[in-house]
Amino acid sequence: MITEPRTLPGFMELLPNEQILFEQMKNKIEKVYQRFGFLPLDTPILELSEILLAKAGGETEKQIYRFEKGDTDISMRFDLTVPLAKYVAKNYGNLSFPFRRYQIGKVYRGERAQKGRFREFYQCDIDIIGDGELSILNDAEIPSVIYQLIKELGFNDFTICINNRKILNGLFEDMSQTDNATEILRIIDKIDKIGVEAVCEELEKLGIEKHKINQIIEFIKIEGTTDEKLQKLQDLNIQTDNFKKGLEELSQVVKYIRVFGVPDSNFKVDLTIARGLDYYTGTVYETFLNNYRELGSVCSGGRYENLAEYYTDKKLPGVGISIGLTRLFYKLNELGLIKAEKYSMADILIVPMTENLEVPIRLANSLRELNINTEIYLNDKKLKAKMKYADKLKIPYVIVMGDDEINSNEVKIKNMETGEELEANLTAEDINKKIS
Amino acid sequence: MITEPRTLPGFMELLPNEQILFEQMKNKIEKVYQRFGFLPLDTPILELSEILLAKAGGETEKQIYRFEKGDTDISMRFDLTVPLAKYVAKNYGNLSFPFRRYQIGKVYRGERAQKGRFREFYQCDIDIIGDGELSILNDAEIPSVIYQLIKELGFNDFTICINNRKILNGLFEDMSQTDNATEILRIIDKIDKIGVEAVCEELEKLGIEKHKINQIIEFIKIEGTTDEKLQKLQDLNIQTDNFKKGLEELSQVVKYIRVFGVPDSNFKVDLTIARGLDYYTGTVYETFLNNYRELGSVCSGGRYENLAEYYTDKKLPGVGISIGLTRLFYKLNELGLIKAEKYSMADILIVPMTENLEVPIRLANSLRELNINTEIYLNDKKLKAKMKYADKLKIPYVIVMGDDEINSNEVKIKNMETGEELEANLTAEDINKKIS
Repeated sequence: MITEPRTLPGFMELLPNEQILFEQMKNKIEKVYQRFGFLPLDTPILELSEILLAKAGGETEKQIYRFEKGDTDISMRFDLTVPLAKYVAKNYGNLSFPFRRYQIGKVYRGERAQKGRFREFYQCDIDIIGDGELSILNDAEIPSVIYQLIKELGFNDFTICINNRKILNGLFEDMSQTDNATEILRIIDKIDKIGVEAVCEELEKLGIEKHKINQIIEFIKIEGTTDEKLQKLQDLNIQTDNFKKGLEELSQVVKYIRVFGVPDSNFKVDLTIARGLDYYTGTVYETFLNNYRELGSVCSGGRYENLAEYYTDKKLPGVGISIGLTRLFYKLNELGLIKAEKYSMADILIVPMTENLEVPIRLANSLRELNINTEIYLNDKKLKAKMKYADKLKIPYVIVMGDDEINSNEVKIKNMETGEELEANLTAEDINKKIS
Repeated sequence: MITEPRTLPGFMELLPNEQILFEQMKNKIEKVYQRFGFLPLDTPILELSEILLAKAGGETEKQIYRFEKGDTDISMRFDLTVPLAKYVAKNYGNLSFPFRRYQIGKVYRGERAQKGRFREFYQCDIDIIGDGELSILNDAEIPSVIYQLIKELGFNDFTICINNRKILNGLFEDMSQTDNATEILRIIDKIDKIGVEAVCEELEKLGIEKHKINQIIEFIKIEGTTDEKLQKLQDLNIQTDNFKKGLEELSQVVKYIRVFGVPDSNFKVDLTIARGLDYYTGTVYETFLNNYRELGSVCSGGRYENLAEYYTDKKLPGVGISIGLTRLFYKLNELGLIKAEKYSMADILIVPMTENLEVPIRLANSLRELNINTEIYLNDKKLKAKMKYADKLKIPYVIVMGDDEINSNEVKIKNMETGEELEANLTAEDINKKIS
């Protein structure tokens, strides 16, 4: 009996040529994380539900893949942060702080299936965790990781938007609107989508007085260069501790972002960014591709006060970012924006057209010894079928080897893109020289 | 409330230094697979139970992590072969054959937890799938992948054992023992563990006549060089089709393994290897580290007639191998046999001992531009604590930068292993030159 082969909806499964692009993108991100000395981490996809859901609630909990095996209540991780918190709490005594780790792995959320939304997707995270305290300089290093990373992915026109939650909280305190803070943040987060007027209306519905609404709008509409914005924030002369602390932190972050080599054209202070979560307590980041704002933030994160409060009474402040790679790949691929280094795994395909395959196989061995990814076509087909195979796999070079080539010790290397043929001696060294 | 941070039993979770070793091992395997032009594949960890269990039964089924989400019956993959079969059947029209793919990913089996056994573990697979037919030469290429791979992992003294199931089946046919074949294979598989006598006793219990048992023992004890073994098999003069076909295939595989560059010291014909599974129909492989036979086969596989018979009526023969990486890593690490290229992620740690971090940070930027993995210690600690951090993370080089170094434009690079200090100008280029 034949079962129709199907893949679960919301689970990405790529054809080989696309998978190669995906792997390149993943590897570029990983390389940048490593360049900054972040340590690799790989935690299980399954955790005890008791652990994974120590904090969660509401929407998240509903989306979780959770089941029992024997009498164990198990859940699939829905992000890489909760497993990190568990890991750091569990291994506290064996880790060196600041603990800088990256993790690239699949996470699971049983969301409503729709185009471009995935139930299984890769997150690519870095976090820097301090033991008790963590210098604000780390908040300034993170944007330089984002900067290198987005450049590495082939984009130049992007903006890292930075804010500090303490500034917002301090402003609300100053206006005696602390109880409304979450609601206000939720509303002003929508300003790009719904406009100033609609934001004002929604704020009015909260019962906030007109002059305070004006203050909020005036605040989030602060314009100018980064330094002008910092000056205008200073000029507001708000005296709550949170506001003063937040402004001081933001100024430090801005100062050092520049030292870390991020040009002013690639970052800005954006006072509307709050990152909905309660989680963040200081610096927050969002990153936009300027010509593709519709993608939303492609890399976000921030500073939190206490990573692992559900698992330990140690205070573990941290700062980190996350990239939702699967969705980002999907969107960039759809827009044709992925810059690939190569589209095939093999650099050369050797196509033997002889009875005896000894010489072609030995050539393949020698090319591999020179670190050239080499495939040899081992099956009995017509030349045309073999060339079509190379073409479909987008293998850049093909060497056809018949008795003539073997006897003359000379081969032709066909460039499959241009159709051009290069002559070479039948040695791996000479072939390598010709295609380099 | 604090929840005690725990990880599920049977799920490997490594400390950073070990994780670095694990990643290196995984990367080496991947690089070798790529060197042979295998294409990357990444399939979901979750599949419809109907798909994943189309064939499974018995032990496997009991071990599976299976659950319902909404009204969907879902299972976690327990190997990478069934998802491959689904993938090839599903994407048949979009793939080029022979389809050569590698996949490195986690699989799940709810086995009884015990030391060195894992419920979540990495498999590293390659397979070559033909459309209708697949040349026996592919069976000869696979051992050359194994050979390169085990060498790459740092071992020279290993043996790839090769057999052909058709030879065994043909022998049993000749002895009219086809019905007992599975049982006989199961028993002779144990010969290394229990010895010849015990094997004979067990075969007797099956009701096999004395002279046939002697034939079986004579057969599996065929000794000599590879060529002598092939000659002795020839001399048995067994005339069943299976035996003749199997011997012809094995001879071809042996001939071409050598052409593919595997020395005779690293492979042998081993007539006792059957690979318990019903799955394999021709060539079978097992690989042993000669000084660590107790690890069992570290890389196994073989030829199968029909990859995806449960999902398509297309005939898709294939040949492949699998490495159980998690267990292998665990065992090799336990024995101290992992050859690491480096033990830290960062190549250099910059330790600023100044108020103003501008010069140290700019140096870190420049080193990273030269592709040197560089970390800068950003937190306010005593020098001793900073050096201890470098030491624990096994970072090979440390540059301490105080005002003296900045003013003189000269730094000392401390080799953390030897204690030696190298002098260098305060430029990334000079530092790079000194540590290369």
